[in-house]
Amino acid sequence: MFIERHVGWNREDRAKALEVIGIASEEDLVDSAIPPDLMMRTELSLPDPLDEAQVTDRLHELAAKNHLTVPMYGLGHFPTLTPAVIRRNVVENPSWYTAYTPYQAEISQGRLEVLMAFQTLVSDLMGLPVATASLLDEATAAGEAVALARRAVKTGDCVIVDARVYPATLDVVSTRCAALDLRVVVADDVESAVAEETPFAVVVAQFGALGHMRSVASLRSLADAVHAKGALVVATADLLAATVTPAPGQWGADVGVGSAQRLGTPLWYGGPAAGFIAVKSGLERQIPGRLVGESVDADSVPAYRLALQTREQHIRREKATSNICTAQVLVAVTAAFYAMWHGPQGLCRIANEVHAQASRFADEVEQAGYELVSDIFFDTVAIRTSRARVVAEQAHDRGVGVRAASDDVVCVTFGEGVPASAAAILVDVLVAQGDGLAQGKTATPKGPNASGASRLGDHTRASDFLTAPVFSAYHSETAMMRYMKALADRDYALDRGMIPLGSCTMKLNPAVAMEAITREGFASLHPHAPEADAQGYAELMDELGQWLLALTGYDALSFAPNAGSQGEFAGLLAITRYHRARGETRDICLLPASAHGTNAASAALAGLRVVNVGTGANGAIDQEDLAAKVGEYGTRIAAIMITYPSTHGVYEANIRQVAEVVHGVGGQVYVDGANFNALVGLVRLGDLGADASHLNLHKTFGMPHGGGGPGVGPIAVKSHLAGFLPSPSPEHAPDQGWVAGSPHGSAGLLPITYAYIAALGASGLKQATSDAVLGANYVSARLRGYFPTLYVGESGLVAHECILDLRDLTHDTGITVDDVAKRLIDYGFHAPTMSFPVPGTLMVEPTESESLTELNRFCDAMISIRAEMDKVASGQWDKADNPLVNAPHPARRLVGEWTHPYTRQEAVYPTGVIPGPLLGQGTDKYWPPVARVDNAYGDRHLRVRLADLAD
Amino acid sequence: MFIERHVGWNREDRAKALEVIGIASEEDLVDSAIPPDLMMRTELSLPDPLDEAQVTDRLHELAAKNHLTVPMYGLGHFPTLTPAVIRRNVVENPSWYTAYTPYQAEISQGRLEVLMAFQTLVSDLMGLPVATASLLDEATAAGEAVALARRAVKTGDCVIVDARVYPATLDVVSTRCAALDLRVVVADDVESAVAEETPFAVVVAQFGALGHMRSVASLRSLADAVHAKGALVVATADLLAATVTPAPGQWGADVGVGSAQRLGTPLWYGGPAAGFIAVKSGLERQIPGRLVGESVDADSVPAYRLALQTREQHIRREKATSNICTAQVLVAVTAAFYAMWHGPQGLCRIANEVHAQASRFADEVEQAGYELVSDIFFDTVAIRTSRARVVAEQAHDRGVGVRAASDDVVCVTFGEGVPASAAAILVDVLVAQGDGLAQGKTATPKGPNASGASRLGDHTRASDFLTAPVFSAYHSETAMMRYMKALADRDYALDRGMIPLGSCTMKLNPAVAMEAITREGFASLHPHAPEADAQGYAELMDELGQWLLALTGYDALSFAPNAGSQGEFAGLLAITRYHRARGETRDICLLPASAHGTNAASAALAGLRVVNVGTGANGAIDQEDLAAKVGEYGTRIAAIMITYPSTHGVYEANIRQVAEVVHGVGGQVYVDGANFNALVGLVRLGDLGADASHLNLHKTFGMPHGGGGPGVGPIAVKSHLAGFLPSPSPEHAPDQGWVAGSPHGSAGLLPITYAYIAALGASGLKQATSDAVLGANYVSARLRGYFPTLYVGESGLVAHECILDLRDLTHDTGITVDDVAKRLIDYGFHAPTMSFPVPGTLMVEPTESESLTELNRFCDAMISIRAEMDKVASGQWDKADNPLVNAPHPARRLVGEWTHPYTRQEAVYPTGVIPGPLLGQGTDKYWPPVARVDNAYGDRHLRVRLADLAD
Repeated sequence: MFIERHVGWNREDRAKALEVIGIASEEDLVDSAIPPDLMMRTELSLPDPLDEAQVTDRLHELAAKNHLTVPMYGLGHFPTLTPAVIRRNVVENPSWYTAYTPYQAEISQGRLEVLMAFQTLVSDLMGLPVATASLLDEATAAGEAVALARRAVKTGDCVIVDARVYPATLDVVSTRCAALDLRVVVADDVESAVAEETPFAVVVAQFGALGHMRSVASLRSLADAVHAKGALVVATADLLAATVTPAPGQWGADVGVGSAQRLGTPLWYGGPAAGFIAVKSGLERQIPGRLVGESVDADSVPAYRLALQTREQHIRREKATSNICTAQVLVAVTAAFYAMWHGPQGLCRIANEVHAQASRFADEVEQAGYELVSDIFFDTVAIRTSRARVVAEQAHDRGVGVRAASDDVVCVTFGEGVPASAAAILVDVLVAQGDGLAQGKTATPKGPNASGASRLGDHTRASDFLTAPVFSAYHSETAMMRYMKALADRDYALDRGMIPLGSCTMKLNPAVAMEAITREGFASLHPHAPEADAQGYAELMDELGQWLLALTGYDALSFAPNAGSQGEFAGLLAITRYHRARGETRDICLLPASAHGTNAASAALAGLRVVNVGTGANGAIDQEDLAAKVGEYGTRIAAIMITYPSTHGVYEANIRQVAEVVHGVGGQVYVDGANFNALVGLVRLGDLGADASHLNLHKTFGMPHGGGGPGVGPIAVKSHLAGFLPSPSPEHAPDQGWVAGSPHGSAGLLPITYAYIAALGASGLKQATSDAVLGANYVSARLRGYFPTLYVGESGLVAHECILDLRDLTHDTGITVDDVAKRLIDYGFHAPTMSFPVPGTLMVEPTESESLTELNRFCDAMISIRAEMDKVASGQWDKADNPLVNAPHPARRLVGEWTHPYTRQEAVYPTGVIPGPLLGQGTDKYWPPVARVDNAYGDRHLRVRLADLAD
Repeated sequence: MFIERHVGWNREDRAKALEVIGIASEEDLVDSAIPPDLMMRTELSLPDPLDEAQVTDRLHELAAKNHLTVPMYGLGHFPTLTPAVIRRNVVENPSWYTAYTPYQAEISQGRLEVLMAFQTLVSDLMGLPVATASLLDEATAAGEAVALARRAVKTGDCVIVDARVYPATLDVVSTRCAALDLRVVVADDVESAVAEETPFAVVVAQFGALGHMRSVASLRSLADAVHAKGALVVATADLLAATVTPAPGQWGADVGVGSAQRLGTPLWYGGPAAGFIAVKSGLERQIPGRLVGESVDADSVPAYRLALQTREQHIRREKATSNICTAQVLVAVTAAFYAMWHGPQGLCRIANEVHAQASRFADEVEQAGYELVSDIFFDTVAIRTSRARVVAEQAHDRGVGVRAASDDVVCVTFGEGVPASAAAILVDVLVAQGDGLAQGKTATPKGPNASGASRLGDHTRASDFLTAPVFSAYHSETAMMRYMKALADRDYALDRGMIPLGSCTMKLNPAVAMEAITREGFASLHPHAPEADAQGYAELMDELGQWLLALTGYDALSFAPNAGSQGEFAGLLAITRYHRARGETRDICLLPASAHGTNAASAALAGLRVVNVGTGANGAIDQEDLAAKVGEYGTRIAAIMITYPSTHGVYEANIRQVAEVVHGVGGQVYVDGANFNALVGLVRLGDLGADASHLNLHKTFGMPHGGGGPGVGPIAVKSHLAGFLPSPSPEHAPDQGWVAGSPHGSAGLLPITYAYIAALGASGLKQATSDAVLGANYVSARLRGYFPTLYVGESGLVAHECILDLRDLTHDTGITVDDVAKRLIDYGFHAPTMSFPVPGTLMVEPTESESLTELNRFCDAMISIRAEMDKVASGQWDKADNPLVNAPHPARRLVGEWTHPYTRQEAVYPTGVIPGPLLGQGTDKYWPPVARVDNAYGDRHLRVRLADLAD
């Protein structure tokens, strides 16, 4: 049974843990911890669990039902070749995909270095000095850029959007602007619109959906015109094209956005791929997304860490620059490695080949008598033909997927790895229609000549890019493989040990589930392939959707949100749309202090004003304060956002009453599903009185965290909200606007969750949840005498995580949660969540996948740390010089002079166990590559690009 | 171009290296190094190189041409499920598959631990105290066992082989015995044969090819009878069956052999899988294959290392216990992890399920009126039917592959993961024939009842096994993944840095090539599937065979040998068979001192007597000595075995003359292809005057070393020897006997070499060879002033490797090659080959895949080591206490007291560069998990099994 592989527990260990907790059985534990009236009463309707081989077979079967053609549909999704060295050593390597978001800089130097490379790549190719790593896709990046412009520009009353942007980009920008009441002017003639309107931002497509390229001269004059109005120019741009055409920053754009998909990320039926944003100087404090920067560690050794975190939602809440949290780290890493692998020359070669293929094709099409929509283009050739749909169909039948943009235009997008035969087939099909020559057109190509000469017009790029050494050092596979290994070795991921983060369920990402996503059937399908080609995905999403609805007790669901934050946004959007459809104006979002961090930022993005609701001494929502707020705001209340179990780590008994109170004034109840791992199979969110929830498939359902994404955050709702979910179709009602750049979000990851649920079945899912609760209560019980648990439920039990209260100890010793977190690195652990939701505490979520052995290793470490704190308290160790404040200890410290009051051995082998073979798991030493990183230094000396050799 | 990814060189670096060597161009270098008359004159006829995506497409196409059924053909190849956690984290992980044979114990603790687990597994399940890790397959293991018996038993004149052993086992044993002039008695009635003959060994099948199981009582009495004759009992056995039936050691067998394939190794069309051998006490010094043992390191910390190496071919040459060198490490590792993953209970469960399936099937077959060949069996049901071939065909058409053992018997073998539907289909097919009942048989099953009750007869296993903790600790995927990672972290493989071994080309194993072998089309085909099902493999082997013949200049080739040593044996066998067919008796094999290590042992295995030929001061074969030996032995000379370029690292100019001299007396010329990486695309072995050569696809052609195998050693010959190669067919002439247990050896690995050659093409292969020569000459030139190169060719150049002469330095300083090798670990390198072929020297082969950066890092390390040696010479450092004799330095030494005359920093960061981020590749520190391992201690206190918790 897969459940036995998924959980870390066996019968004997469960018994031992229950004894420590002081409860008779796991059933009793769960029954005591969870308020009985919340427990699910019906049987879960899920298929019987499959074994590993059956899961593989089923996924192969589904993959085979996706029909692949040469994917030339365009619209921002391009053919690209993932180098095998990246696929094998990164995308398929748990050292990369099981890592957490690099908040703990000391154990994340490897991926931080690659993310620096990603930022450098984007910055170089956009010609703009600051880029983050990363955003969710081009469409949401454009939405973020508009919001950035709104914050940065005090004047202007609208955003002008070039009608040539990709439809998804327009859709998402419109959706976001609608939520914030920002006026969108969609302009065929952007220049005139700029003249007529008073915009705060203008979104310009450097490359239009039909391939159209504006001349550089016109771009420059447009930028001047926009700037003259005091507005910002946001360019939607293309990283590959930017290697041979002027960068947005070079013709005057203030912000560049786009997708890095075509740098080696599989199509994955639309996602995941890394979105990006780059901004000009002066906007860096406004930029959304995580920003990696260089700083120094406590020994003045250069080190990376996340910069300017005060912009972010987890700190700044509703005033954050964005609600983005989980981003697209793994695929941003993929893109960065792709750029290193090919280097600047290689990328130019690929770009030139793509362009040459497109140009040759255009020549032949013109020779066949067809007219092109645009004479200058990079990779996309749009052809006028009265038989556009017939052409697309016939090409499809011959294995080439192209898009009928309308009845009269066929659009063909080239990319890396398109075989020459594809163009030949298309020419064949076009010639066979006969309507080119029938239109009486000349048979002479309009290109400079018939040999595929450049169609880039006045676009040329002269400046250097990717001059940092990392883009030239790893062009052989051996060198690249070693670099990847060295970077992974610097990091601590789930493949080393426990990552006991509260609120971010870091559990097993089963290999059998992960194997599916790099199979061609799932990896190589274009999101705009005809429905008939996507039967495997359709079947998978249909089944998986049913399963998730059964587990949550909701009625309808959308897979579009490509992160938890986007799920929240989509849910709030459904709620505000619902209210508006009923003619109600509601602008308040109630938010308990125990809610998940991103909620506030999402509420702001949805145009809601956040009103906080307090929590009581027991950690539960303060009913009186709630009543007061409901009394105060009444029918202005759009929603309350509750996390359940709350981030205080307990199953609140009064959740239904909370829902009733809010429903009483017509408000909707949003339950954040971030902690759904405490409920799966036992409690349905829909039964709590909730109207909408997102799920974090990358927390609860087996998907890896990827070092900070990609994630998938489907939004599930009760039937009354179903009509307000984002539509998977590009044609939809205004109330079904898109929240992501592709119809099914990060569809390419869904096989993971499908495999996870299929392998566990109803019984396995329940067992996993019980074991997660068991683990948390065990940790809480074992540590009770050392670090008290802040909140427990009425039964004295916690849910799936526990908050360890260090505040008194910190007061007595000066040792902070940061010190403890960093000291845990010396003990071979990733730190728990620090100071969230309560400052001065650590939140620990062991998950069901950790074994008693590992939990004991963790508890032993914590108890040992407590003893160390006591030595500081007693004065045996100096408050300013002890292994806690000096943690973590990189190996290099051992070779220098040793002046500390503790020994070298106490510093690096604090358990007294000196690693060697024959000791078993968990005894090998993880050496942090750097000492504690100085965050403030890095923010004062902002450096967010890799230096050139000359620097 | 893939060549740019495969080699570590770019134009600028080549120029820098050439300058150091002092030669104008790479063409000049190769032209000077290689004697001009040996250079190939014709154009290589190979297809144009494919890019990575094309290679993938082509391999997918070939894989799809293999038609898969439920693989129930048996004959030692079983359905089994590779756990995804093993496939992803081991089989597909370069940290495991790019490792070298664990001769350097200090950097091999991870895989040594798993190999200890393999030995423990085999030993426990065979009920015999000592097992090695590992042999090539059951068939060769049986051959080795017979040879072992011949050495151990002084009496007896024949080996009796149970007619029920697998045909391949009989074939290989017969082949090997024929070569050694040992008489083989194939006995249907083994008991009578034992009574009539005077055997030195009796090979008994505990499980016959038709599923027949001898009763335990009869096995015991047979063993008694054999022992009474002073002979040894060799049991062919089954690891899975042994979990529920008595182990060979428990019923009296002295030796147990078999294959570990069914413990999670894919079928791979016959290989690779790990063969095994276990022996009773007293035979451990006779056992063939590598033996891992526990010892201690210099700090008395327990550590693993290879034990009793003096048995082995690289030390004992023709007196070795076997010619085995490259074994099946990676698949032995797979089997060991499989056993840890399932644990003893899990293995029993699988065994019981397999047996229950077989038993239920047998019941139904008997109910249908069919008679079984044997009533007691474990997993194989043989059914009498006059329509055996029709049944097999019809079953095949319905997706189930079974074997018509004859016209009258259909044989059905169950294994892990066989779907219930397979048995149902077979019953259907049998019932449809109607010849069961037509035979007038009863419709009552002979089994104890009709519910699939046990058919194991008196076989039951009561004793415990797999009681070592490692078999119970890692049953959750999280725990297993971490254990695998921790083990890999202890080791140094190609993914960390250069492995500069002479004679074992350790170069890139391209990910794109490796990806193919775990695809189902290649991984899941049974070797006894009908030819029509194996069209993908057939096409691949046909093309690849042509390519290899074009590269070598030979006329015919066999892929059967599943290691270089077996290729040698097959080649010598072809030669001796050829002589015999011409009526000549020749028993001498000439062997220059510069020949490859395994040659002597292979010659012994082929029944030849080794006569050494000296080498001159320049390292080349001493022509005078050759003439003398040829004069002395004349027409007794069967062959000369030459390695070219020789292990002295130079292209000898007189190779053709050597061949002529030997040909002059009718001898054949065998050229060992171990160093073919110095010739590919430039020189054809066939043009040197050679008659036969094996190739090491795992050295020259992209296959990984796997930590000591699997390898593939195809044997190529001139046309006159073609008729004497092993036949791929089980029916063959006596002169075409098998050398391995499956028709095409380790066919499953051939896609790797196919991909390698397809991606490089003729131009790439040539470039790779030139770059390999460039690298070796660069190292030789850069180190000239520090460590002189012992032998150079007439041009002053070396070939693809160079021998660094340390003898004078050792004399002056007491610092040995061992010290230097171990000290290189502190610098972050795997050691070069030590004291082979010349004691007191180091042999370095950089290969084409290393970059100038990495070569410089290596040369810098060597130069720094030379400076360290000088400090010892000058007395600055004590001869008994310096960083060389104390090397390597594990991290734990840093925390203790420091009394050495050198600093901690000099110990562990000897280059002065202290690792940190931002430094680039090669600067991250590899920490050896143990200090220098004490080999002698381990051999004195032999411990070759993992201890139980209680021990």
